[in-house]
Amino acid sequence: MSEKQLKDEQRHKQKMQRQKKRIDASIAGANEDRGVLILLTGDGKGKTSSAFGMIMRALGYGYRVGVVQFIKGEQLSGEELFLKDVLPQVDFYQMGTGFTWDTQDRARDIEAAEKTWSVVEPMLSDHSYHLVILDEITYMLSFKYLDEERVINALTARPRNQSVVLTGRGGGTAIREIADTVSEVKEVRHAYNSGIKARRGVDF
Amino acid sequence: MSEKQLKDEQRHKQKMQRQKKRIDASIAGANEDRGVLILLTGDGKGKTSSAFGMIMRALGYGYRVGVVQFIKGEQLSGEELFLKDVLPQVDFYQMGTGFTWDTQDRARDIEAAEKTWSVVEPMLSDHSYHLVILDEITYMLSFKYLDEERVINALTARPRNQSVVLTGRGGGTAIREIADTVSEVKEVRHAYNSGIKARRGVDF
Repeated sequence: MSEKQLKDEQRHKQKMQRQKKRIDASIAGANEDRGVLILLTGDGKGKTSSAFGMIMRALGYGYRVGVVQFIKGEQLSGEELFLKDVLPQVDFYQMGTGFTWDTQDRARDIEAAEKTWSVVEPMLSDHSYHLVILDEITYMLSFKYLDEERVINALTARPRNQSVVLTGRGGGTAIREIADTVSEVKEVRHAYNSGIKARRGVDF
Repeated sequence: MSEKQLKDEQRHKQKMQRQKKRIDASIAGANEDRGVLILLTGDGKGKTSSAFGMIMRALGYGYRVGVVQFIKGEQLSGEELFLKDVLPQVDFYQMGTGFTWDTQDRARDIEAAEKTWSVVEPMLSDHSYHLVILDEITYMLSFKYLDEERVINALTARPRNQSVVLTGRGGGTAIREIADTVSEVKEVRHAYNSGIKARRGVDF
């Protein structure tokens, strides 16, 4: 090994040791053991798929999972098919016939949102659910289809061991404030804008 | 219905129509039908889980999926258990005994990275894979464990119908430039920093 290589090796080792020290310190500092409220927001690709990836994590340990989707396009999606066909143990509800980007009927949308919320509320008070995913719920708040206070109250009063993932752009500040973890998915570039079609099995 | 409600309804309808018009226009403008290269980067939570969510999408349509993880902690993760136990049809490889955040042995890490790359390369030239996930591969480039040119060449020469998802912080500019879609997951807040432990079934 040359002198340069030896030096590189040493530098790398020191760098990795510092990194490990930082990670270990932050693990040691985290003592509270409870469910978390996660908000995945921003305009970039990956919010819904990230929530669905967490389903795998929870199921890997045999935990109970509830998934409620507030917006449903007309197009069938791969994750819907997968949940229905392969994972019937996941409690899966879709707002369905109500709101999609294509409807422009506010009264009907509100009715559908409220019906959907009546599925969510029992989940948020049932400690047997380890993980509850409320996909695209932020739009229900932005559009004032659901009462913000009611949503916030149900989220904060949920069982201590339950984690909840909320996805969607916007949604207001109240939800941001009560979330333990907030990730903002920023669109740096999207294939769409270079004329590439949305891809089955990747985008939907 | 009061006059104000009627007005609100109308405004909402107009807003939704504009939104639908924008979405329809961007769909009509996208004509190229091929696999995409997606980079999920940034310091926020949700990159790996997002990639894993896309596995569900692809499997929902019965597509073949390959998953290669370049960094593996000592802790077993829920998605690993799930893939191994529930989804044996997914070709899943982990760098395993090699690199983790805990090792500080550059020569051994490089060896492990190269061994892992030898699993990736055949996937990237096999059109039967609809989706290939290279989890945390960016670190292999940042640390110069893998030759950047070799990685870029294999990615750009892959079958036209194959989509690839790369995850991890950093990774350099070359990979950013060839990606069709780049999402940056920004950490706005993380439960860790309020002293909340990483959660089984959510964080790992």
